[in-house]
Amino acid sequence: MSEDRVDARVDARVDAVAETLFREQDRLVAAFEEFGGDTFRRTPWQRDGFGRGQVCVLDGGAVLERAAVNVSVVAGTRLPPSITDSAPHLLGQPFRVTGLSMVVHPANPYAPACHANFRYFSSSGSDWWFGGGVDLTPSYGFDEDATHFHRTLRDWCARHSVGDYPAWKSACDSYFTLPHRDETRGVGGVFFDRLTGSFADHWSCVADGLATVLPAYLPILRRRHAQPFTERERHWQSLRRGRYVEFNLVHDRGTRFGLQTGADIDAVLVSLPPLASWEYGLVPEPGSPEADLQRFLTPQDWLRPRGG
Amino acid sequence: MSEDRVDARVDARVDAVAETLFREQDRLVAAFEEFGGDTFRRTPWQRDGFGRGQVCVLDGGAVLERAAVNVSVVAGTRLPPSITDSAPHLLGQPFRVTGLSMVVHPANPYAPACHANFRYFSSSGSDWWFGGGVDLTPSYGFDEDATHFHRTLRDWCARHSVGDYPAWKSACDSYFTLPHRDETRGVGGVFFDRLTGSFADHWSCVADGLATVLPAYLPILRRRHAQPFTERERHWQSLRRGRYVEFNLVHDRGTRFGLQTGADIDAVLVSLPPLASWEYGLVPEPGSPEADLQRFLTPQDWLRPRGG
Repeated sequence: MSEDRVDARVDARVDAVAETLFREQDRLVAAFEEFGGDTFRRTPWQRDGFGRGQVCVLDGGAVLERAAVNVSVVAGTRLPPSITDSAPHLLGQPFRVTGLSMVVHPANPYAPACHANFRYFSSSGSDWWFGGGVDLTPSYGFDEDATHFHRTLRDWCARHSVGDYPAWKSACDSYFTLPHRDETRGVGGVFFDRLTGSFADHWSCVADGLATVLPAYLPILRRRHAQPFTERERHWQSLRRGRYVEFNLVHDRGTRFGLQTGADIDAVLVSLPPLASWEYGLVPEPGSPEADLQRFLTPQDWLRPRGG
Repeated sequence: MSEDRVDARVDARVDAVAETLFREQDRLVAAFEEFGGDTFRRTPWQRDGFGRGQVCVLDGGAVLERAAVNVSVVAGTRLPPSITDSAPHLLGQPFRVTGLSMVVHPANPYAPACHANFRYFSSSGSDWWFGGGVDLTPSYGFDEDATHFHRTLRDWCARHSVGDYPAWKSACDSYFTLPHRDETRGVGGVFFDRLTGSFADHWSCVADGLATVLPAYLPILRRRHAQPFTERERHWQSLRRGRYVEFNLVHDRGTRFGLQTGADIDAVLVSLPPLASWEYGLVPEPGSPEADLQRFLTPQDWLRPRGG
């Protein structure tokens, strides 16, 4: 879609949303730099007739082994099958889309990975929607982490008339699932797509969602990033990251969209962990912390009162 | 498809082919055990109404970091979309299929990975075909390895009236390609599918192909497995294995067939390397052996006379 002229009628609100996303990118990167002590590499890019963006990546950090916060605003007329399959009336329509995606893979095996994505799509001014989500993927399960994460997301949703934590939480569980493993990718979070109606209400909710990523995730990182570990936990983390790779390459729509559009492949695959492994016939020792992870990988209400 | 009764008319030649595949499995495993000095784990399996097989896996070997040789013979009536998309008349037809698949990921970064697959499919006795292939994936390129591999495969094809090295070599280049990277997975080999006509001729050719795997690959392993290397080469190998994972999870039909049929997921994904990594914005130093690999990752005639 790189060479096509874009219909000038396409929703100019895209630019306003994009400006906010670029500001949020700066804020997230600054927060992770302060937390981890390592500096991200910032790579702004621009392609005529396609769009612009900025890739911010940290590779090999001591605390955050890999982290990326990317923002782009792009235009085109040829939507990939990953969108037109479910919205055939958009075939050949000019569109613009802006999005922020974030992934953090901490070095410490006890610190969970976190992924967030927010995007605004607009076609010819008539069709528009917000989509996005935030989710958490631990290698070792901690109830208090899952509960903190979900409580923070629920409270965000509760602040907005258009927020719907139960539906979005359930959509997240459905989406971030490895059917071939019969397990979820992690403890979930929220996931929403094709949100449309009042732009003001939805944008207010989404912008607040962006601001909720750090309060949802940083307290967990703080709790876990310095927890002592051995090679055993690193190896387990690497195996769990293998599952993360399976999800992203086999199922993730964002990744498949990127592979189909010929976008910068490094930027698309920056969501992958730095190191992943696979082992045949792996069964964690019953009663071990590794075996305990399994109970976190099935959809459940993280906010129900729990017995001691 | 696990619970369906299988039409008794389905081609009984499946059993004859399967017996040969089980024998070849023993032979391949024995050869790799002798070469590497490590013992494979053998896991026979049987599922009523579905089929049987044997998974032979070596994990963490000193010479062969991961190797697997699997044979199965299974039956069903519900073919997955990966087959019926291109053969809709087979929808709902009983079938049996037997196959051998092999993958070897050597520990030494200079020793290439090798993959081979041979299968016989039969539906109600009327439709049947052979499919398969053999291909080589180096992390560091050596012309003599690629040439030896292709020469051995060409000579095999030349021994059979139904062998077609040029067509199969070209099909291999097309199939083992990462479009999103604009590179092949490795230096290719041969790939064929839906071979039908004279069963005797095709089976003779395929059986000889099975016997060609070791002469094509072992001399290369012998040349490379003890070549000195450092952490730099191991890291590069791990990055290249990331590309292998990308191919298998995003494109490989065998893997996708496995994910769709609910087969034992560990057996399906045993083709993945033990360890893989991804790095943002990786560009090998110009003139380095790592940069030199790129010239191996584009389809070319490995048997043309080369200038000194």
